[in-house]
Amino acid sequence: MTMYIGVDIGGTNIAAGIVDGDGKITARAKASTLPSRGARAVIEDSSRLCRDLASRAGLKPKDIGGVGVAVPGSVDPREGIVLFAPNIPFENTPVAGWMRESLGCPVFVENDANAAALGEVRAGAARGCSSALVVTLGTGVGGGVILDGKVYSGFNGAGGEVGHMVIEAGGRLCGCGREGCWEMYSSATGLIRMTREAIEKHPDSVMCEMTAELGKVSGKTAFKAARQGDAAGQAVVDMYIRYLAIGIGNVINIFQPEMLCIGGGVCNEGEHLMNPLLKAVGREQFKGGDKTTKICVAKLGNDAGIIGAAMLCEQSKTNGRGCV
Amino acid sequence: MTMYIGVDIGGTNIAAGIVDGDGKITARAKASTLPSRGARAVIEDSSRLCRDLASRAGLKPKDIGGVGVAVPGSVDPREGIVLFAPNIPFENTPVAGWMRESLGCPVFVENDANAAALGEVRAGAARGCSSALVVTLGTGVGGGVILDGKVYSGFNGAGGEVGHMVIEAGGRLCGCGREGCWEMYSSATGLIRMTREAIEKHPDSVMCEMTAELGKVSGKTAFKAARQGDAAGQAVVDMYIRYLAIGIGNVINIFQPEMLCIGGGVCNEGEHLMNPLLKAVGREQFKGGDKTTKICVAKLGNDAGIIGAAMLCEQSKTNGRGCV
Repeated sequence: MTMYIGVDIGGTNIAAGIVDGDGKITARAKASTLPSRGARAVIEDSSRLCRDLASRAGLKPKDIGGVGVAVPGSVDPREGIVLFAPNIPFENTPVAGWMRESLGCPVFVENDANAAALGEVRAGAARGCSSALVVTLGTGVGGGVILDGKVYSGFNGAGGEVGHMVIEAGGRLCGCGREGCWEMYSSATGLIRMTREAIEKHPDSVMCEMTAELGKVSGKTAFKAARQGDAAGQAVVDMYIRYLAIGIGNVINIFQPEMLCIGGGVCNEGEHLMNPLLKAVGREQFKGGDKTTKICVAKLGNDAGIIGAAMLCEQSKTNGRGCV
Repeated sequence: MTMYIGVDIGGTNIAAGIVDGDGKITARAKASTLPSRGARAVIEDSSRLCRDLASRAGLKPKDIGGVGVAVPGSVDPREGIVLFAPNIPFENTPVAGWMRESLGCPVFVENDANAAALGEVRAGAARGCSSALVVTLGTGVGGGVILDGKVYSGFNGAGGEVGHMVIEAGGRLCGCGREGCWEMYSSATGLIRMTREAIEKHPDSVMCEMTAELGKVSGKTAFKAARQGDAAGQAVVDMYIRYLAIGIGNVINIFQPEMLCIGGGVCNEGEHLMNPLLKAVGREQFKGGDKTTKICVAKLGNDAGIIGAAMLCEQSKTNGRGCV
């Protein structure tokens, strides 16, 4: 079986792994990103991780089908160039070119949310689906779009930014400059802000005690309070789910994908999130015949980036894209 | 050159045309839909129009590359079945099967907004683009999505419903059941409603005189009043453009298509619509490198349906889809 290497470059760590054709990670390696060193050093360390992994596994260059790299930024996947990345020092950086020079095998580059979505389709919750969306609820709302088994990112590599879809005209100002972006309401950050506002408004809420004990408000606070029967906590949960359902309804009406996976820490709430969410999305969805999009929780967690990056090498076989 | 026939079935008329490989209509035919007759009769008349066109043009069945049919409803393009159409009597109707039986050539079926989008890409404003969105501002806001040169309509044929994307959470109730859909604000219907509300609120507005003269409020009223310096008219135009820019910004951030074409009567306002709109969209757009989506007015008008339907036959060559 051909083996691939996936590299997930984040603002803090570079995580790499050998991945088999089924999307299983068989060996791992890790290094600190230390972004202040600049692009060359980060890329050199990424290449070193790949070499170490290959030699530890006894793989020769010819045994490696390719290396895929996931990066938190705008990518031109055809050229393998990272155009811009807010948290790592890449700007018009020819990542694929540099790494290929160093490694001597094909290298593919993709935005990390897109790579993660590909991972879920190849080896996670959306395995076997031809079309899927993966929506990750973290600091922002990230989106990865897989159509016809391949990453879709528009003609300029910047597509799939579902978090920057306005769902409340004139709403809260987003970092992107728009008002009322989905990610202002449905990210973990948005949930924490709504929780904080409710605590200020309801000093008698269970959420106040929790926060005093814990020393901070988290994305779990409102859900936990709601489970204890706290009305203010329940109101935050209801509001959070309402906005989440609106955004999910939007992307379903637009893409009608076979599967929509939700990822991020808030999914740990399990049925307390998913049961009311599925009910709410049912009301928001445009029906097309009797086939409707399945909604589920993403399965691969932090491994999605490594696995999806590795699977970029397989994707390239079928679409002739990417690579240098 | 292979010739195709495009048939555009609407609630009032069936319009058909012979279309060459460049997307040019070389002959036309028309009949009343008379929907109350039922599906069989409408399909028989559509087939008859095709036969008449072919015989008038001296074409034998073997000269015809195929027949494409555009229908205002949900379609399963793989099976050539119209699942549901609100204004014509089709429900799970095997349009492609029936017409092929009658005509003896391949028949393809698609939703009319999707077909129109394909027409604009093959022979209109988005000619030569690999990806394009066509947004039509009419009774509703229709969307047609072309990715990789082909119609994209999701795994169930119901995708591309950009008009049913909520842009104002808790906003006006839409016919689809959601609150705050884009089409409530950016359709011609939405514009007329906003104009009517402004007239009630500002009985001294120029719009009142115009309406009294004309006997009705139209989509032109506010634009015309604004050009005459009427403040209330200008406020309606500003509000209309603001919502339009929000929705367009959303679909650009999601798809990053090479081109976005806007169609519908309101485009007749020309630069009075497009200049402020382009400025507003510039503020709403997520930038990905230096390549940004071009925005323009659709070119084919009512012919887009016939041309796009015909071009379904060419599309099928490249994607192996459609057809019975």
